[in-house]
Amino acid sequence: MASGNAYEQLISKHREMNTLQTISWGLNWDQDVMMPPKGLKSRARELEYLAGLIHDMVIDEEIGELLDACESDESVIGDRLSVSAVNVREIRRGYDMAVKLPSQLVKDLTSASSLARAAWADAKKNNDFKGFAPQLEKLVALLREKADCLGGGEDGGEKWDALAEEYEPGCKARDVEAVFKPLRERLVDLVGRLAESSYQPKDVVNHVEVDFDQQLSFAKVIAGKIGFDFEGGRLDTSSHPFCSGFGYGDCRMTTRIHKNKMPDALSSTMHESGHGMYTQGTLEEHAGTPMGSYVSLGIHESQSRLWENQVGRSEAFWKWCMPLMHEHFGEKFAGVHARDVYESLNIVERSLIRTQADEVTYNLHIMIRFELELALVRGDLNVADLPGAWNEKYKDYLGIDVPDDGVGCLQDIHWSLGAIGYFPTYTLGNLYSAQFYEKANQELGDLHAMFEQGDFTTLLGWLRKNIHEHGMRYRAGELCEVVTGEKLKADALLRHLEGKYGEVYKL
Amino acid sequence: MASGNAYEQLISKHREMNTLQTISWGLNWDQDVMMPPKGLKSRARELEYLAGLIHDMVIDEEIGELLDACESDESVIGDRLSVSAVNVREIRRGYDMAVKLPSQLVKDLTSASSLARAAWADAKKNNDFKGFAPQLEKLVALLREKADCLGGGEDGGEKWDALAEEYEPGCKARDVEAVFKPLRERLVDLVGRLAESSYQPKDVVNHVEVDFDQQLSFAKVIAGKIGFDFEGGRLDTSSHPFCSGFGYGDCRMTTRIHKNKMPDALSSTMHESGHGMYTQGTLEEHAGTPMGSYVSLGIHESQSRLWENQVGRSEAFWKWCMPLMHEHFGEKFAGVHARDVYESLNIVERSLIRTQADEVTYNLHIMIRFELELALVRGDLNVADLPGAWNEKYKDYLGIDVPDDGVGCLQDIHWSLGAIGYFPTYTLGNLYSAQFYEKANQELGDLHAMFEQGDFTTLLGWLRKNIHEHGMRYRAGELCEVVTGEKLKADALLRHLEGKYGEVYKL
Repeated sequence: MASGNAYEQLISKHREMNTLQTISWGLNWDQDVMMPPKGLKSRARELEYLAGLIHDMVIDEEIGELLDACESDESVIGDRLSVSAVNVREIRRGYDMAVKLPSQLVKDLTSASSLARAAWADAKKNNDFKGFAPQLEKLVALLREKADCLGGGEDGGEKWDALAEEYEPGCKARDVEAVFKPLRERLVDLVGRLAESSYQPKDVVNHVEVDFDQQLSFAKVIAGKIGFDFEGGRLDTSSHPFCSGFGYGDCRMTTRIHKNKMPDALSSTMHESGHGMYTQGTLEEHAGTPMGSYVSLGIHESQSRLWENQVGRSEAFWKWCMPLMHEHFGEKFAGVHARDVYESLNIVERSLIRTQADEVTYNLHIMIRFELELALVRGDLNVADLPGAWNEKYKDYLGIDVPDDGVGCLQDIHWSLGAIGYFPTYTLGNLYSAQFYEKANQELGDLHAMFEQGDFTTLLGWLRKNIHEHGMRYRAGELCEVVTGEKLKADALLRHLEGKYGEVYKL
Repeated sequence: MASGNAYEQLISKHREMNTLQTISWGLNWDQDVMMPPKGLKSRARELEYLAGLIHDMVIDEEIGELLDACESDESVIGDRLSVSAVNVREIRRGYDMAVKLPSQLVKDLTSASSLARAAWADAKKNNDFKGFAPQLEKLVALLREKADCLGGGEDGGEKWDALAEEYEPGCKARDVEAVFKPLRERLVDLVGRLAESSYQPKDVVNHVEVDFDQQLSFAKVIAGKIGFDFEGGRLDTSSHPFCSGFGYGDCRMTTRIHKNKMPDALSSTMHESGHGMYTQGTLEEHAGTPMGSYVSLGIHESQSRLWENQVGRSEAFWKWCMPLMHEHFGEKFAGVHARDVYESLNIVERSLIRTQADEVTYNLHIMIRFELELALVRGDLNVADLPGAWNEKYKDYLGIDVPDDGVGCLQDIHWSLGAIGYFPTYTLGNLYSAQFYEKANQELGDLHAMFEQGDFTTLLGWLRKNIHEHGMRYRAGELCEVVTGEKLKADALLRHLEGKYGEVYKL
């Protein structure tokens, strides 16, 4: 087999698999956004059948043979950052992860997480951790087994690393710990100082009732103005906002709209637009290959957080946006100024629920989950002791008492799905976004001045060139170094948070 | 291989193929209704890949072996109207049609119709039949070759029959001719008498401008009231209304909305709801098998036409609907009475364009196309002579001069797609709908009195029991005999049209 040919065959087979994946992603979007309730059973059959076809293609031995051929060909992999080398590396990663897992274990995991998900839903509703504990125990045991099969991640390492590999390739628990520790200490301190400040910002906009359709049309206007391309995507609504899509050129995102939370709908829209613009910023020539995909969940989240927080929660953004808002909503927000919305969107509160948390405390919610899941996987914490450990950390880091497990350790669905290694990607996203944004601001000049003028193209162009167009060329950590000249650190995020909230709270 | 087992295997394999088909139908719906323009290229790749998978499954030799096993087992096929016998018969029909066609011919047809479609679009725009003629000639030649391969339809027969088999299984040109001839003569006469009548109904509603969203929400109300189940389906908008869907329980239909044509939007909605309720009336236990599918395009069209015309163009329907319309649209239709809308919807005009034709002349447009396509396939008409023959028939049957081919023989896309044998299914639908409706009225009592009270459930229940639930158990002709006690004839449609329009035009 000629190896130049082997590479083309590999890419062609990978693209076929990707074609089925894009269909599957699209069907999931449709299920959440469009499908009538009675379509559920046939949709499940459709998705299950596609998953089977995809799995067969992923573990196809011919992929292994083609990879071997490519890897023995210097012209394909000689330059480790070339398109071909990156594609081969990433297809190899996916192939190895798939073939390393015994099919019985995969089945056991599917069935255990299905049972755990159902048990979790009941347990959350009835505030009954004991009803969930046996299922979670089973799941953790299977995940530890999975981690052993995967051999501790790419370069060896501990069990958690192997599990995180699926979400954040190359991510190591020890590296996360090293960045999270100083972040946690400084944030706990910051949250305390904000709570004690004599000036407390007021929420003046989140009670104004606004028509659903008007909010959605405004969300579309803003998404378009910051750079989301509606010729290549849609914005709809769903109860949990997300960004997904069919194939290249067809990005589907959703936002959530409540009658009395217009700025929330806008934040959610800008968040998803950040994801969407990352997707739209990949290059068409790489569609359906790793070079046309994204680095990691953390890097994806860095793009959504950057547009949601660094842009959408800045005073400069609202100075530009406020006249549009007055124009669009007429008298609804009469007398409300940019500063009012800015302050309303930047209130920090110690609270129980992660998904409702502000930009500062959010990271503490994540760190708690990371520390606990790490302890579970390491075997340092028994599932039975999870509620106690959870409540203790909420007391330590956030200073609040957890009244029951329903709003405590049962609040999130993730663990019940077997997604261990996922939570930290949210805070990694915040860290990367701050470090990228700071660099962009250095290189491009005063970004806030641009936002005030409605110029978002300059920033988007920088993100495209430095991040989006590279696809999976770099691992997250390496991308960070290439783009910012430094390893990931807590400093930029801390400068951003301490700076902004110090100003808002007049510390 | 145990043959009981063979039947189960056959059904299981057929259902897998059907699962991919439902995905493919759903993606087509999404393309027309939801997809952003830049998604076209990846959507084409998705559909093409699925089509390849489906084709491989259709011609899989194992299907042939399983069919052989089933057909030698009396317990499976002994009772020709049993579920198993019907499923085996129809899977056999699809398998034979697929394997009889040489793959080179299939490729040639795909490529020829792709070229013909492009040439047709240009020719229509530029009113240039000569630009389309060579492509149509090529296509007709290939279709004649296809007909020969298929061996003239199920029971032998002429070339046209073999081509029509795809749309109207078991349909014979000679039978169509026998029904169409008396229909044509009486309709030509009726149209003449209506044109000469001293009373001419006026259109008083199709100029009122109504908001797009208000029309759509009203269309949904009416579709729901006549029996479309929105728990198992959707109604959206598209430029050409259609009814399609994903799998069982997920029927997707569209309507067209123009600012100033509210009753047109409603007719189009009731038409598609008729298709949709047929789909929703099949039995879940037969989902994904022929017994859960539809008889033919003609029978499908009978259901859409029945709700569009027999119900939606009746005065009784408007007596019920008018108060709802006043309530929904406020002052927009103030002073408009049921009789006004009824007359507006029942104006007969000799016109050039099929898709804009009324309930009476529509059938003449169809008969012209049927006669011409039959002559083309029989070799009695050269493609070069098509425009002249077309114009002559429009003069003969409709009494109008065709000013150019763009609004003449180039107006429809069907032939350019290679769809010969398709057109008559529209008028067959009208014929079946009238014969079914007349029978339902005899069995159920006064249907108009029920419509005035908003009772559509009684009629829908009758259609479900007599037609929908049978899936493909009967061929169209046999179904007609089983349900109405008579073969398909022109009489019921003529009674319906002559009766209603005689009254409207005060003949």
